[in-house]
Amino acid sequence: MEKFEVHILGCGSALPTTRHQASSQVVNIREKLFMIDCGEGTQVQLRRSRLKFSRLNHIFISHLHGDHCFGLIGLISTFGMIERTADLHIHCHNELERLLTPQIDFFCKGMPYKVIFHPFNPGERKVIYDDRSVSVETIPLRHRLPTCGFLFKEKPTPNHIKREMIDFYQIPLYMINRIKNGEDYITDEGKVIPNDILTTPSDPPRSYAYCSDTIYLPRIAEQIKGVDLLYHEATFANSELARAKQTLHTTAEQAAKIAEAAEVKRLVIGHFSARYEDETTLLKEAQTVFPNTQLAEENLLIKL
Amino acid sequence: MEKFEVHILGCGSALPTTRHQASSQVVNIREKLFMIDCGEGTQVQLRRSRLKFSRLNHIFISHLHGDHCFGLIGLISTFGMIERTADLHIHCHNELERLLTPQIDFFCKGMPYKVIFHPFNPGERKVIYDDRSVSVETIPLRHRLPTCGFLFKEKPTPNHIKREMIDFYQIPLYMINRIKNGEDYITDEGKVIPNDILTTPSDPPRSYAYCSDTIYLPRIAEQIKGVDLLYHEATFANSELARAKQTLHTTAEQAAKIAEAAEVKRLVIGHFSARYEDETTLLKEAQTVFPNTQLAEENLLIKL
Repeated sequence: MEKFEVHILGCGSALPTTRHQASSQVVNIREKLFMIDCGEGTQVQLRRSRLKFSRLNHIFISHLHGDHCFGLIGLISTFGMIERTADLHIHCHNELERLLTPQIDFFCKGMPYKVIFHPFNPGERKVIYDDRSVSVETIPLRHRLPTCGFLFKEKPTPNHIKREMIDFYQIPLYMINRIKNGEDYITDEGKVIPNDILTTPSDPPRSYAYCSDTIYLPRIAEQIKGVDLLYHEATFANSELARAKQTLHTTAEQAAKIAEAAEVKRLVIGHFSARYEDETTLLKEAQTVFPNTQLAEENLLIKL
Repeated sequence: MEKFEVHILGCGSALPTTRHQASSQVVNIREKLFMIDCGEGTQVQLRRSRLKFSRLNHIFISHLHGDHCFGLIGLISTFGMIERTADLHIHCHNELERLLTPQIDFFCKGMPYKVIFHPFNPGERKVIYDDRSVSVETIPLRHRLPTCGFLFKEKPTPNHIKREMIDFYQIPLYMINRIKNGEDYITDEGKVIPNDILTTPSDPPRSYAYCSDTIYLPRIAEQIKGVDLLYHEATFANSELARAKQTLHTTAEQAAKIAEAAEVKRLVIGHFSARYEDETTLLKEAQTVFPNTQLAEENLLIKL
């Protein structure tokens, strides 16, 4: 199976602590790396992950709170020092370009690569990235400023063609890819060999949804229906329900309700408030509603 | 003895690694905290140090390279979230205010305290901070952009008055502080009791010099003559002498030569290049010239 992995670099909330880094993760899809959010300290966490810096070309920023973007300038500066030449694409709310550009101009003079901003409207559901293997769609959320999540959808991979069928029907080379992509084969005698006899189906395409930060928002269940993995913020426990509402965050139980309603395969919760010494309570409250829940933690690798 | 301590929060150089944080330290003088430099990740290191955030009112920035100031916005933002009310004073090159203000305005809206910038000219030797217990003087250095070190000088503390002399001469209360500060005592009979009979001398005032980043600059020895502790950058080993010159950095041996010429009591070297897996070579090269050298490391506490 092709690679589809999520590396948690940081899963703390507004106040970074010695236990949790600010928000950041890397989605590795077939060795292309996509970063989501980039709180302070992300570049060191990226180094710790041993992922290849050069494979990271796209960064998606959910919203402009410091714990989701203060690490950008350090990362950009370091990429310059290690002689990156490939463009770096930052997908974000349009305010970020205005805020970051003077910093890049001053601190990263003469950098050997370009930073290219791709502004989007977090309030609108839209595909903001698309290539041969993956698409990324915004998930409009509701927080104290414009915020969205991101839905990563793998594209279907071609079917596997059966070796013995190639030999048996002496299928010419030029037909191989066409059959992999679903065509039937017609022999020289005009006999139609249906595709499902020639191939075995490829693995079903996988999907990953990242939702942080947001108030409890049941409507997103429809958009993230059936994803293989959902990362949902769970800043607070039930006891802080009022505070969750007030600060436009979610409780662990509410995150689990989203997972249940969306019938996702697995849930990982994160963005933990600094008040929790450990997150066992959050985990238990979520698992009561959605058993297949796990806690995010720094340096956790989740394979889809 | 009153407290005079240096907490190393980070002693790496331009490229932060999993081994070394970017530059930052805190000088604790009689429970007043002074931060020097504030690279990315400083706020978490400050938390790790268990120093009281509220005791930190002054930050000194040596120069505007990212590894010495990218942590400021995160620190400022966090101080806002934890409801700081006291002004925070940042002593720095005047460019920093222009760069940081738009960020503070955007990311720290409605903060309950003020950030006050105190620009200075790093090329000029000058006392930029002064209170009852300490003064801070710039040490002009030579680096790729305007840079200075900082010389922290403790003020003399009053002498200790001898309990038995108070009793013997029945010295009145109002004279106690005057005697501590050096006056003789004249008895009712007009007899002069010299101060050195009444008191024991206080501890001699201590001093600390921070010099990073800079090319090897022998002229600073005169300004930092006899300090109790010198922190000097030692980015490279002897084998990288040419690179040290080219990038306007110092080798460990050169740092030791400064310490020797300035007759400092102790040397701690830091700002290590990311190329060194460990810094034993740097330590050995420095100790050949100046035996009382130690390596900086994260979370190291040095008591003067």
